[in-house]
Amino acid sequence: MINLAEINEAHRRISPYIHRTPVMTSTKLNDLVGARLHFKCENFQKIGAFKARGAFNAVLQVAEAAKPKSLTTHSSGNHAQALAYAAKISGIPAYIVMPRTAPQVKKDAVRSYGAEIIECEPVLQAREEAVQKIIAERGSLLVHPFDNDMVIAGQATAAKELLEDVPVSLNSIITPVGGGGLLSGTALSAHFLAPFTVVYGAEPEGAADAIYSLKTGVVEKAKFIKTIADGLLTTLSDRTLEIIKAYVKDIYLVSDDEIRAAMKLIWERMKIIVEASGAVPLAAVIRQKQHFSGQEVGIIISGGNVDLSAFFDA
Amino acid sequence: MINLAEINEAHRRISPYIHRTPVMTSTKLNDLVGARLHFKCENFQKIGAFKARGAFNAVLQVAEAAKPKSLTTHSSGNHAQALAYAAKISGIPAYIVMPRTAPQVKKDAVRSYGAEIIECEPVLQAREEAVQKIIAERGSLLVHPFDNDMVIAGQATAAKELLEDVPVSLNSIITPVGGGGLLSGTALSAHFLAPFTVVYGAEPEGAADAIYSLKTGVVEKAKFIKTIADGLLTTLSDRTLEIIKAYVKDIYLVSDDEIRAAMKLIWERMKIIVEASGAVPLAAVIRQKQHFSGQEVGIIISGGNVDLSAFFDA
Repeated sequence: MINLAEINEAHRRISPYIHRTPVMTSTKLNDLVGARLHFKCENFQKIGAFKARGAFNAVLQVAEAAKPKSLTTHSSGNHAQALAYAAKISGIPAYIVMPRTAPQVKKDAVRSYGAEIIECEPVLQAREEAVQKIIAERGSLLVHPFDNDMVIAGQATAAKELLEDVPVSLNSIITPVGGGGLLSGTALSAHFLAPFTVVYGAEPEGAADAIYSLKTGVVEKAKFIKTIADGLLTTLSDRTLEIIKAYVKDIYLVSDDEIRAAMKLIWERMKIIVEASGAVPLAAVIRQKQHFSGQEVGIIISGGNVDLSAFFDA
Repeated sequence: MINLAEINEAHRRISPYIHRTPVMTSTKLNDLVGARLHFKCENFQKIGAFKARGAFNAVLQVAEAAKPKSLTTHSSGNHAQALAYAAKISGIPAYIVMPRTAPQVKKDAVRSYGAEIIECEPVLQAREEAVQKIIAERGSLLVHPFDNDMVIAGQATAAKELLEDVPVSLNSIITPVGGGGLLSGTALSAHFLAPFTVVYGAEPEGAADAIYSLKTGVVEKAKFIKTIADGLLTTLSDRTLEIIKAYVKDIYLVSDDEIRAAMKLIWERMKIIVEASGAVPLAAVIRQKQHFSGQEVGIIISGGNVDLSAFFDA
């Protein structure tokens, strides 16, 4: 399993390329929840999400050893942009497999970093086949969005900074959970740097797989997928589940209405843009108000990439 | 005219009650404009706008001398909330005159700070008569939104902090201009603290009065009023015009389309919520790109109070 030296090394490696994002607080939200909330604002991160950390750590680390001919991944979300950006900075070509149905705005963002998009049918099998084909034909190295120790060590640096920058001891930290890269990295950082800080995950009722995986001990699929938190649809991997089983206390579920309400609260009260997936932890803290009452709570706001055309082009 | 000691004293007086808001930068926006922009984020200020500074300075200062029985003002915008909040903290009743047509969300915000709202017809004369009636009947002290030296000295502290916190010498600072409280305060701080920093105002084409007032030397009205920047509709006062004539280099006009585009850029690239009025200076810098090319430019983002229901309740 990843050790503290690897997390420290990841932090040193990526620091010239990422933002040390601020930790923000809101008296109004504290009063509303009855706890003191410390928001680690990864919506201000490069490419608008924490994914820049893991992608940079993986890309810089493989480039240190022997520069790969090219990089590839399949993602329709923030990891696609993150890998494209890290590859560009490192001077390595990147091929990103995206479902042909992905929003134009996301394709444009990936292309703006100079990566080439390979479109495929919007099903997992087609995505994996397309990636295998790129690896075979172009000799590309796969940088998986979360099933990768270098990526997890990179994501762990968000919680490391949070723990270093808050002026108090945190009773708990809560992050969203999709594939589990951020949650497992956070759990490792807390384990090594703040062993009395309890780590929780938060996931949508409409993509509830991590909660069952933690209960049964094996990677489970969600019973159904239907949520506005479009960054949290994937299942865990054996790798992330192993860390989560060891160091995460519990996973909390929230409904889409609760996610939307939490998102609106953050926009209105904190004046910052957070995407639906990034509002999931606050939604969970609000639902579990009694549990978190009186605590110092760290919340990782995972990203801020939102299609604003509905607001501006109405 | 207000001197440096008064601005320093205002800053000392209000510091326990306001946020020292961050100065943010954006590589993408710098690249777009061809200048280095330093955004003073008053959207993160108490009540969501710089108006908290002036209101607190005035209320605390009059309370130091002899606590007034009550306070009043007429405003449908951020000054109403700011005065209500400062009055609440100081334990003084506040009566806020608002047009009966003001949005419910704004009335709710003022009431949330414990102030009483007196509704009137939505014309200037009715507002002024309502305020006179409150002064006569209840012995209230008027805290004008901008035609007041204590308020201007308070608004001046935003630029004071900006000048103290940027790691470079600013070539220029640009602020929105409505009644001129923020612009005149900014101009005074720059005059005293950074005499080589040139100060500009930015105003909507659909509320273009300051630009004509600066040209003719007397307070002028706009030829017509039609803009999304609803915080910038008022004319200057003799007091603010006098300072602006002495210390402001120029006023730049922008269209509503330019304001909307600048607002969207800030939301999308910086992941922060800024209201239309607060996006006016960036819109002006973009229109005057040639002029600001290569400069270190301070931009005061005046506020972030936006009705988000169009986005969330769609």
